[in-house]
Amino acid sequence: MSMRIRKKPWVAQELEENSLILRNPEAHALKMPEYFGNDNPIHLEIGSGKGRFIIQCAAKNLHINHIAMEREETIVAIAARLARESEGSLVFVNLDAKDLLDYFKPGDISRLYINFCDPWHRRKKWAKRRLTHVNFLAMYEQLKIPEIHFKTDNRILFEFSINQFSEAGWIMRNISLDLHNSGIEDNIMTEYEEKFSALGPIYRLVASRK
Amino acid sequence: MSMRIRKKPWVAQELEENSLILRNPEAHALKMPEYFGNDNPIHLEIGSGKGRFIIQCAAKNLHINHIAMEREETIVAIAARLARESEGSLVFVNLDAKDLLDYFKPGDISRLYINFCDPWHRRKKWAKRRLTHVNFLAMYEQLKIPEIHFKTDNRILFEFSINQFSEAGWIMRNISLDLHNSGIEDNIMTEYEEKFSALGPIYRLVASRK
Repeated sequence: MSMRIRKKPWVAQELEENSLILRNPEAHALKMPEYFGNDNPIHLEIGSGKGRFIIQCAAKNLHINHIAMEREETIVAIAARLARESEGSLVFVNLDAKDLLDYFKPGDISRLYINFCDPWHRRKKWAKRRLTHVNFLAMYEQLKIPEIHFKTDNRILFEFSINQFSEAGWIMRNISLDLHNSGIEDNIMTEYEEKFSALGPIYRLVASRK
Repeated sequence: MSMRIRKKPWVAQELEENSLILRNPEAHALKMPEYFGNDNPIHLEIGSGKGRFIIQCAAKNLHINHIAMEREETIVAIAARLARESEGSLVFVNLDAKDLLDYFKPGDISRLYINFCDPWHRRKKWAKRRLTHVNFLAMYEQLKIPEIHFKTDNRILFEFSINQFSEAGWIMRNISLDLHNSGIEDNIMTEYEEKFSALGPIYRLVASRK
């Protein structure tokens, strides 16, 4: 993607030197499982931000390969720097979710995480940009992703998303309209979630193909 | 059903004389469409309470037959008295939702309304009594009810219900997590809804079979 933020020197260096960052993703297009060199399932987070969530997922699930996808290069550098000492199988990739089909084959991804994605709420025509819009759901279906874990604090986005998942024929489970007061114990929080969950409920669902 | 409330004289009189009340429902078992004497679709509300909602539905939709089902005899009398001057095709029936299969044939009901039903939240084992429990959904499916309109102000019941509908393979649409602030204009309010919607959001969904 084009650079919108002027790259600070340490960012350039991190992007070049941090071994957790996938350099030259094009070279790995459509062969991401080969990159890991094992047959473990791949869990992908799109819009991984500073990576707190996926870093913890990786540390807790050593037999899963994790990919943190983030379209802001500077954020990728920040996340990868934070992950330097972390355990598990994890790689950071500077890509946009809309290009998923260029990089993954059907069956490559066993689980997708979408956490606190941009609600694109200010204009009606922006609804198509939401990562839970039926067009995106069709792409996930094409990739045969069996399971999507979705969290947001935006009520309108959540409402929109349930409708979209249902319309597209996904089965939902573990729907929560107030995750932090639902008694579940294994919730891994994102940076954003930790910061903003005091302001209102966190919504969550898991969608799967029949 | 057994009487739990001592019948006041006017209640007994209303139940005997109000022509909007279906006397001797057993005599009409499995032949409710014949009762109306026309081929118009039947919309049924279970737990119709004092009837405000279904009375308005009937007045606004003259080519639909409406059935208000309520298991408290006294409440049936109150509702039917309130409906005396109302327009439309409407009948009040003193029956319990759990007995639906004894009174209706598959295909008889075109739409089911469930409004602010008892959330049965105090004990876990009471979940089975919720009108949106998968066991009830299976009954509605057996009756080939194509469409269920559900409203509640109880977040936990709504969360439970979305999960149950999804699990049972119903397609949901028009999901709202705050109906009164969603810009829709044709919402008909129940007594309960008018009274309690100031205290928190009203949740709504429409579920249909594929």
